[in-house]
Amino acid sequence: MIGNFATATQVHRRPGSTDTHAVYDAEIAKGWDIVGNANGGYLMALAARAMGDLAERPPLSVTAHFISPGKVGAVTIEVEAIRVGRTLATMRANVLNADGKPVISVIGAFSGPRKGTVQVIAATPPVLPPADECIRTGPPPGSDDVGFRDRIIGRYPAEQVEFRYDRPTGKAEISGWFEFADHSPIDEYGLLLAADAFPPVCFNLDGSPRTWAPTLEMTVYLRGLPAPGPLRARFFGVCVQGGMFDEQGELWDSEGQLVAHSRQLALLPR
Amino acid sequence: MIGNFATATQVHRRPGSTDTHAVYDAEIAKGWDIVGNANGGYLMALAARAMGDLAERPPLSVTAHFISPGKVGAVTIEVEAIRVGRTLATMRANVLNADGKPVISVIGAFSGPRKGTVQVIAATPPVLPPADECIRTGPPPGSDDVGFRDRIIGRYPAEQVEFRYDRPTGKAEISGWFEFADHSPIDEYGLLLAADAFPPVCFNLDGSPRTWAPTLEMTVYLRGLPAPGPLRARFFGVCVQGGMFDEQGELWDSEGQLVAHSRQLALLPR
Repeated sequence: MIGNFATATQVHRRPGSTDTHAVYDAEIAKGWDIVGNANGGYLMALAARAMGDLAERPPLSVTAHFISPGKVGAVTIEVEAIRVGRTLATMRANVLNADGKPVISVIGAFSGPRKGTVQVIAATPPVLPPADECIRTGPPPGSDDVGFRDRIIGRYPAEQVEFRYDRPTGKAEISGWFEFADHSPIDEYGLLLAADAFPPVCFNLDGSPRTWAPTLEMTVYLRGLPAPGPLRARFFGVCVQGGMFDEQGELWDSEGQLVAHSRQLALLPR
Repeated sequence: MIGNFATATQVHRRPGSTDTHAVYDAEIAKGWDIVGNANGGYLMALAARAMGDLAERPPLSVTAHFISPGKVGAVTIEVEAIRVGRTLATMRANVLNADGKPVISVIGAFSGPRKGTVQVIAATPPVLPPADECIRTGPPPGSDDVGFRDRIIGRYPAEQVEFRYDRPTGKAEISGWFEFADHSPIDEYGLLLAADAFPPVCFNLDGSPRTWAPTLEMTVYLRGLPAPGPLRARFFGVCVQGGMFDEQGELWDSEGQLVAHSRQLALLPR
């Protein structure tokens, strides 16, 4: 049975943990993988759950370095509190596989509730067709479950996913609607997942292979808790250079609030 | 005596260090502080020097969380190699003050030489007046040394630094020319400094106090080694919300190559 996002990111603190050092048992859940490897945002969310548990507050800024693919199965998460202040807690963590090898290494700031008032905003949500006029990628309803792509619904303006037919836009950009397939609410942890849930922007570059683009590093700023409903997301790359590309993301909630900023550095597919 | 950037960021590995765990002695140098607190990019560079020494290669992506102000004086840097691969090494470090309290906590990927070929670029260097027509901030030549502002030369289009006379542009943006005051060459470590060397973009917001804007987190991608000469830099914020603002940076070398991308999350001055 494949659980929802909340159950698939459960973590269990081991006895003997202290206020500053704790070990968590968790599982990379089946159904959240892409051909056997867990989605990067899912891994970040798993680590952040353990860090947020020890910090006793949700994430504000999370950075993950991706070291080895996350295979379905047991992992341990070693969490260390660097400093716990009144409002902010700085935490770091390593997610280790069953062989004790690092999968991701994470640092983050965790913070209690903050006023969401927007004072200045120099960006706007992407202009998207209504969700039902967008292309939903992934397998057709009723087909065999293939993993991660069945856990989320991404709906894209048709021209932005023509790369599937070898007609990329030529511009490192993909935008669309995001929600969980089971309509689970999206909290800070869900935003970490959403920030890495779309096809990589390099898929829209001319001549780019459309295979795995391994993320080296991803940082997500959680700027607000989303209002209910699907998110609007826009991802774009600024520079493809030296075999690497950046992908920046802006995630907006149904009320037009910028709820997350993401940025990653990834290797071009080969 | 105030040393140049290279001598001011020297680190010394302690005997007894291993390939995966090392402790470095270093000093937050006088002259690189702003009213007694070290510049954030300087602290990142100091940590990255130790991490790069253990990794035996320069930084590619560095993230720092700023925990307490860095006062001039001795620090220790505890470096841990999470994984050292053939091309990439993932490292983390804590910089501790003389009391053993964390100043910054850092994670980074370090990488050997990489091809700098630009394949796609969706940004352009800022359009700036010639350096000699820009405003150079900081004290006039010959005045008493006040610290960090005497180590670097920032030259700005006049209208962008009118905030000094309480005439902000109203737009969260500052661009200009950057170089070391002694014309030291700018390597990957110098880029870490340059990414945090300009006044915070919030200084150009209407009604913002122009005092310390504490950085919570900063990530810098080192996309290439700069050609000789001053950098052109553009910093801009996308969202001011909940008492925090982001500041994104693009740094360009004299040949028009994007050499670094930065992003930070900071608290609004109060």
